Amino acid sequence: MANYEKNLGKIDGRTKLVGLLATPIGHSLSPQMHNLGYTLLGLNYAYLAFEVGNDTLKEAVEGMKALGVAGFNVSMPNKMEILPYLDELDDSAKYARASNTVVNRDGKLIGYNTDGLGYVKNLEQQGVDLKGKKVTLVGSGGVATPIAIQLAQSGIQELNIFARNDQFFHNAEENVNYINNEMKSFGVKANILPLEDKDRFRKEVAESAVLANGTSLGMKPLDQLSIVDDTLDVLRKDLVVTDVVYNPQKTKLLKQAEEAGATAINGLGMMLWQGALGFKLFTGEDMPIDDIKKIMFG
Amino acid sequence: MANYEKNLGKIDGRTKLVGLLATPIGHSLSPQMHNLGYTLLGLNYAYLAFEVGNDTLKEAVEGMKALGVAGFNVSMPNKMEILPYLDELDDSAKYARASNTVVNRDGKLIGYNTDGLGYVKNLEQQGVDLKGKKVTLVGSGGVATPIAIQLAQSGIQELNIFARNDQFFHNAEENVNYINNEMKSFGVKANILPLEDKDRFRKEVAESAVLANGTSLGMKPLDQLSIVDDTLDVLRKDLVVTDVVYNPQKTKLLKQAEEAGATAINGLGMMLWQGALGFKLFTGEDMPIDDIKKIMFG
Repeated sequence: MANYEKNLGKIDGRTKLVGLLATPIGHSLSPQMHNLGYTLLGLNYAYLAFEVGNDTLKEAVEGMKALGVAGFNVSMPNKMEILPYLDELDDSAKYARASNTVVNRDGKLIGYNTDGLGYVKNLEQQGVDLKGKKVTLVGSGGVATPIAIQLAQSGIQELNIFARNDQFFHNAEENVNYINNEMKSFGVKANILPLEDKDRFRKEVAESAVLANGTSLGMKPLDQLSIVDDTLDVLRKDLVVTDVVYNPQKTKLLKQAEEAGATAINGLGMMLWQGALGFKLFTGEDMPIDDIKKIMFG
Repeated sequence: MANYEKNLGKIDGRTKLVGLLATPIGHSLSPQMHNLGYTLLGLNYAYLAFEVGNDTLKEAVEGMKALGVAGFNVSMPNKMEILPYLDELDDSAKYARASNTVVNRDGKLIGYNTDGLGYVKNLEQQGVDLKGKKVTLVGSGGVATPIAIQLAQSGIQELNIFARNDQFFHNAEENVNYINNEMKSFGVKANILPLEDKDRFRKEVAESAVLANGTSLGMKPLDQLSIVDDTLDVLRKDLVVTDVVYNPQKTKLLKQAEEAGATAINGLGMMLWQGALGFKLFTGEDMPIDDIKKIMFG
């Protein structure tokens, strides 16, 4: 085991706990990412994961508060169920109606949603200007939804969401209604459209600055698939194509984008920024993203 | 910082938490001792301390349960207050009416008291035979009481407790009544006597196999004091003299004992065994006591 894989921070009576409440937790990269950050910066924190589902969430959250932890992340299946147990919600969690990051501020639990924030923050860091732009987003599941909600707060003009016309389509419709009605103050027009409508997809992407894949299409073992297989002609030089998938780091969609000369942004940055925003909230320090990316992903 | 002072164990998504609930916690040696043990044995555990007092104890304990921790220690001011929140009590906690060690066994919290157990275990390890013996114990505070209660379960015949005749004397009386009435099945006769009665002290020690100091007399900055200053003639070759103090490691009492040719046992072993018994309950493994003693205390 290489040195950087270990948490070299000294655990003592003053070490602060940061937790993750989710189930299953075995596959989460968050413990490694945060502990690596603490090690690199010499911070006296330890990030531990706890198998917690909806049935014990209330006690776990009240316990985290009583223990005086720095904060904790929340993942499936607890992101929505946690809301009633929090003292305050940041806009990111309020509009997403879900929280993945909870900070203990002087005994008050404040909920954030860094899933969507991480996506938008990464775009900003990559120099993508969203102001007044049209964005096309594919997907309406657990990853795409916070992205849609955060995009709606980021100054864009129009958001077109394409989703498969299946039993989950009404979820996407509800989200679009929510953006158009409950988030009216942000001045974004949202549309929900069936992914099967290739002509409309072609038209919307042509008018969009960003095409975002918010589905798992392209992720192993579906790595031979892409959202634009029959609509390859939508890719062009001044389009930004983003993927939430980071395994493989270069999905078929991003390969297609690069071949068309478009800007290709994979899911690593979103994942890292999602963590970095929490890291900053928990510790007050900037997570060393570049070092962590190099160490964890080569 | 030397390598052994760090927890070199890799913290990952499977690292198990062991906690300490107390306030104040800054001075506790437990985090260092347990984490050092995990490091030496390569166990995937992390021991963290949490500032928890009586007011948030219930939520903290329910939280520890919901988080599925391996277990936790409890110290002042929570050792008695925790009892109603536990699912079962080991005899060590039941009779001490206090618990300092809680194990999570398949979702049930089982309370132990390793303060007294650690004292008795250390005596056994040092080859002291308690069976049928008379023991003289000085003190009736938070350290002496669990020792008294555990001694009463260890096969001794008679326990004489000497305490200063001050406003706390009635606590000692109550404990002696408890041993004589509620712990009758162990067949031990307990007496409570005023420490000011030098003649009685001299007589009881003369008939005892063990003279135990359960007070902080002799601890820095009271290190020029000893419980036998006016009764030095009670020390003799076949007497075992024990101290709960380990700072300094050789108290004035133990120096006097050695000069008289008696067996002198300081508080380090009790403290280490108190932790080792918890370590075993939390992890299933034997704490490497000798290595830890060498590293932490030279």
